[in-house]
Amino acid sequence: MDPDSAVIIDTRRSCWATLRTVPIKNIQLEHGFWKSRLDVNLEVTIPTQYALLESTGRLDNFRRVVHQLAKPFQGYVFNDSDVYKWLEAASWAAKIDACSELRDKVDQVIALVSAVQTGDGYLNTYFSMEREGERWTNLQEKHELYCAGHLIQAAIAHHRTTGEDSLLMVAIKLADHLYATFGPSGREGTCGHPEVEMALVELFRTTRDARYFERARLFIERRGHGILGGKTYLIDHVPFDKLMYLAGHAVRALYLCAGVTDIVLESGDQQLRLVLERLWSTMVHQQMYITGGLGARHDGEAFGEPYELPNARAYAETCAAIASVMWSWRMLLLTGDASYADLLEWTLFNAVLPGISLDGRSYFYVNPLQDSGFSRRQAWFDCACCPPNVSRTLAMLPGYIYSLTDSGVWIHLFTSSNVILNLVNGERLVLRQVTSYPWEGKVIVEIIDVSPPQNAVIDSSMSEPFSIFLRIPGWLRDDQAEIRINDQPYRHQIHSSTYLEIHRSWQKGDRLEIIFPMPVVFNVSHPMLMENAGRIAISRGPLVYCLESADNPRVYLPDVSVDPTSKVDSSYFPELLGEVVGLRLQGRVNMTEDRWMDHLYQPFSSSRTHSKLSGIEVACIPYFTWANRTPGAMQVWLKVFE
Amino acid sequence: MDPDSAVIIDTRRSCWATLRTVPIKNIQLEHGFWKSRLDVNLEVTIPTQYALLESTGRLDNFRRVVHQLAKPFQGYVFNDSDVYKWLEAASWAAKIDACSELRDKVDQVIALVSAVQTGDGYLNTYFSMEREGERWTNLQEKHELYCAGHLIQAAIAHHRTTGEDSLLMVAIKLADHLYATFGPSGREGTCGHPEVEMALVELFRTTRDARYFERARLFIERRGHGILGGKTYLIDHVPFDKLMYLAGHAVRALYLCAGVTDIVLESGDQQLRLVLERLWSTMVHQQMYITGGLGARHDGEAFGEPYELPNARAYAETCAAIASVMWSWRMLLLTGDASYADLLEWTLFNAVLPGISLDGRSYFYVNPLQDSGFSRRQAWFDCACCPPNVSRTLAMLPGYIYSLTDSGVWIHLFTSSNVILNLVNGERLVLRQVTSYPWEGKVIVEIIDVSPPQNAVIDSSMSEPFSIFLRIPGWLRDDQAEIRINDQPYRHQIHSSTYLEIHRSWQKGDRLEIIFPMPVVFNVSHPMLMENAGRIAISRGPLVYCLESADNPRVYLPDVSVDPTSKVDSSYFPELLGEVVGLRLQGRVNMTEDRWMDHLYQPFSSSRTHSKLSGIEVACIPYFTWANRTPGAMQVWLKVFE
Repeated sequence: MDPDSAVIIDTRRSCWATLRTVPIKNIQLEHGFWKSRLDVNLEVTIPTQYALLESTGRLDNFRRVVHQLAKPFQGYVFNDSDVYKWLEAASWAAKIDACSELRDKVDQVIALVSAVQTGDGYLNTYFSMEREGERWTNLQEKHELYCAGHLIQAAIAHHRTTGEDSLLMVAIKLADHLYATFGPSGREGTCGHPEVEMALVELFRTTRDARYFERARLFIERRGHGILGGKTYLIDHVPFDKLMYLAGHAVRALYLCAGVTDIVLESGDQQLRLVLERLWSTMVHQQMYITGGLGARHDGEAFGEPYELPNARAYAETCAAIASVMWSWRMLLLTGDASYADLLEWTLFNAVLPGISLDGRSYFYVNPLQDSGFSRRQAWFDCACCPPNVSRTLAMLPGYIYSLTDSGVWIHLFTSSNVILNLVNGERLVLRQVTSYPWEGKVIVEIIDVSPPQNAVIDSSMSEPFSIFLRIPGWLRDDQAEIRINDQPYRHQIHSSTYLEIHRSWQKGDRLEIIFPMPVVFNVSHPMLMENAGRIAISRGPLVYCLESADNPRVYLPDVSVDPTSKVDSSYFPELLGEVVGLRLQGRVNMTEDRWMDHLYQPFSSSRTHSKLSGIEVACIPYFTWANRTPGAMQVWLKVFE
Repeated sequence: MDPDSAVIIDTRRSCWATLRTVPIKNIQLEHGFWKSRLDVNLEVTIPTQYALLESTGRLDNFRRVVHQLAKPFQGYVFNDSDVYKWLEAASWAAKIDACSELRDKVDQVIALVSAVQTGDGYLNTYFSMEREGERWTNLQEKHELYCAGHLIQAAIAHHRTTGEDSLLMVAIKLADHLYATFGPSGREGTCGHPEVEMALVELFRTTRDARYFERARLFIERRGHGILGGKTYLIDHVPFDKLMYLAGHAVRALYLCAGVTDIVLESGDQQLRLVLERLWSTMVHQQMYITGGLGARHDGEAFGEPYELPNARAYAETCAAIASVMWSWRMLLLTGDASYADLLEWTLFNAVLPGISLDGRSYFYVNPLQDSGFSRRQAWFDCACCPPNVSRTLAMLPGYIYSLTDSGVWIHLFTSSNVILNLVNGERLVLRQVTSYPWEGKVIVEIIDVSPPQNAVIDSSMSEPFSIFLRIPGWLRDDQAEIRINDQPYRHQIHSSTYLEIHRSWQKGDRLEIIFPMPVVFNVSHPMLMENAGRIAISRGPLVYCLESADNPRVYLPDVSVDPTSKVDSSYFPELLGEVVGLRLQGRVNMTEDRWMDHLYQPFSSSRTHSKLSGIEVACIPYFTWANRTPGAMQVWLKVFE
């Protein structure tokens, strides 16, 4: 196996993939937005989560089995998965030898996990000792395959970033046990909580053992035939290829879609691909918050009906946003379609990042778009799926920035970074990206080096032509971007939500300069989204903004209306949140009329009585930064002047 | 005990009650709205529900225990309560000897129930035989006291309408067992699902045994101190007298409020009374659907935050509306304040009645205010709390029409009926009410007879003066009602939502005529109820109206807007639903613009592009009659012309 293969998803041999992924260790983030987030992840979040795995008994659950201790299993049946997600986060975040203290902890945890595995490959601390006899008896509710999936993903991350096999061998042994148990002559089961499908396909990509791929496919095909009780909650109400829109538990549905996309990447199944495109499109056009948040319902943590997107009562679980990123990434690798990259970026900024505090120590599970100030991030949860999921997502983020095709390099995300790319012709390309994105729209891409293949005999200063595929974000209007190459304007039609291919003989020292204007946009909703009628949500570049009481202390936020024609002042709010661009614009406070005192419903009056108005300056902050200061109200959708 | 005491709530000796209730058997409904509903209840609903109690194993659960059969308990732990609610419905509905076939069934069920009771008074079929040892071990979840409460209520109904003691003796024995178990030296428990509190106070009213009243008070006082885990869902998060607004499971919260009101009726506790008034007011002004529906959230069947009232995703459980009626009735008895009678009537028409089909055979558990046509009433539910609850509510409805004070008779509801009233001076008053309400606004009240006390020596033709307290509904505007006495105009300021006291020497043959105009009202919502911004809901008299596809077949209902200044035509829709007044008014169909195709959010455009409009005639039906014809969409809140 190739320790150079530290890709988060390995599509380099996937026959149906448009894009090939780039090893994460070839990418070095530089000072900028994502570097600061990832530094906090590595230095604060991952260590504090380890301490919480310890203090909440999640690691003791493993020790209990290793040492056969006479004490009960602690917490939820799926608590092992939090340990695995932490292992995965630590593996991607630390890369090789970046942090020896963390490596030691990772090794200790791996030793514990390995020691729990039984001779036949089975591994789950809940179904050990007194519950050994109950293994695989309740796939609908007990998350055994789900936990196995997270172990496999952690093992792959560990293997790819360290080159070591210690955890990978455990995962392979477990996967072989799954094959024996659920194989052609085994049980007719599938998991209530999809997740293992993605893991098994990735294990196939790692080992090229096709049995794992087949197992994943079988787990998907078994859904929708009633073996999970036919429940919508478990996405068992119809077979996957009959789904017309997403319903049921949002994280489960989205993990399943991501797993199916993995299947299509390897099999090229065109019917499944059409289903995926249909589901993704319906989701984006009818079921998604403007933040990219998914799963509107608290009840069943589920997708709502079309246009059922309550703001204060949004569920929008952080894990659902993460699952959406995982799915969009796979759809992007499959198709090369910029729509998927647009959603991936938008969701990272506006639906995943809100899930973690700026200091990296607390988390939102539920992400309302309007709040009276009672929602606050928590240091942990009994059901702690979100915290380590955020952590692993941030840790693997460098892997989302670039990818490759035979034609050249694709730039998906804009953040200061250096990357080494091995082009198909054998050339080694070193790129540098410098930007203050998302705060500012200028991105500079420099060719640091283009080295010919080592066995090449041609002039090393004359590299072969190749393309840079530059993502033109969907939040931009057509032809708004300004592009220069070596200080010369590059004149070309530029369509938003596409990749602009720039094909030339790129030379060492070439400099590609992109300037995205960052206008403030006032967004309105589809007329069927009734709660947002007469309201706008503000965005700037890839960021959704909101009002928070901390900046607007003397007003009741629901009384505020804003003037969508007013000039908006964008400026750094350093005194508040560090380097964050906030917005200031003209607003009014429409005091609710006295006639509404003690009335919920009243007869319609066509002569509108004047409400008491007073002009104010309204200050907005990026949605992902809310709830980091004095507790107070927050609101995304704002009334407009009447 | 007095078999004449067939009152649904006996406040005749309640020291703190303003109003005294009237025996249900003294009231005879005549041809009209409620009579037809109650006939269907007696002739269709109660018999079909009996068959369902049989076919779903609810009666077999009793036989299992009586005959010690080796078969499992069937259904939910609280299934006994459905049998008790049916017994209560049958008792109130059949009155004495009105239906011998039903009487036979009632007697058979009572024999079964009695046979299950153990020597110590315990009675619950779930916690019998193999689960005998688990009695009273899980009060939070297992509904044992809840079931006991429903048994006691059924027993009181049976006793009061038949004069028999068979079931009452069972109830008393069970109540004594509760006293022994949960008394001063007993367990520190209270039930996860309030209900027994009302039952025990009523048993106190029936037996005058104060231990039952004390037990009810103790069950209430024990809440909010963590013995139910401190859960909001169970209304255990704070002590009752610290509640600022209603939260948690709506039916539980409202049954609890009704029980507390019973406590106040007997104890006069002024602090609790203030809490009840505060909770009721907050509920009505911030948490109630325009239908009177309560409990906005599917998640936890719970009250939402203020102004959290989604239409399509409304929960508004039928049982919560029933609980609201029970609570408002008790508040009315306590205070004589017409606001409570207004809500009681409004809720009966617009939130209880929608729970049952016009043919009396199917039920809504959840009552959305907007639907795409998938919600249909069901013949029964696994959790079948609503069907027999609707049935007992209809059966006891005659008891809500009138009450008495020392000053005279109070008329709360308008429906054709004869009533015999025993005034405080010993006079026997026979009243007759004739009306087509709620379809038409004319109500005639005739004094059929006024008999002096039997031992009176005065001239029998000269009865003493007394008052008729006539409810002026809150849906009316001030001074809109026209009143005549013996064809002479009665000139008096008439305030809506009050009782108009008409004091005089009422004589046999006197005729009081009231004409309420029935204007169509376009209602708007509080500005904070965002989903209803720019929308109106139509009402006429005490009825909320809605659009249904059956009458508006070729339009997509969310595209419809109406002109709130247009003339509205009210007419009977006999071809559709029998004698139901429907409305016709001018509307438009605003086709959603093409620019919304495949978009959920778009930049704000201040220049409104013209949408495609076409004028139509819109037909509306009373909300309670929806979903009785061809399945199709329904909508209460309609856009208004822009």
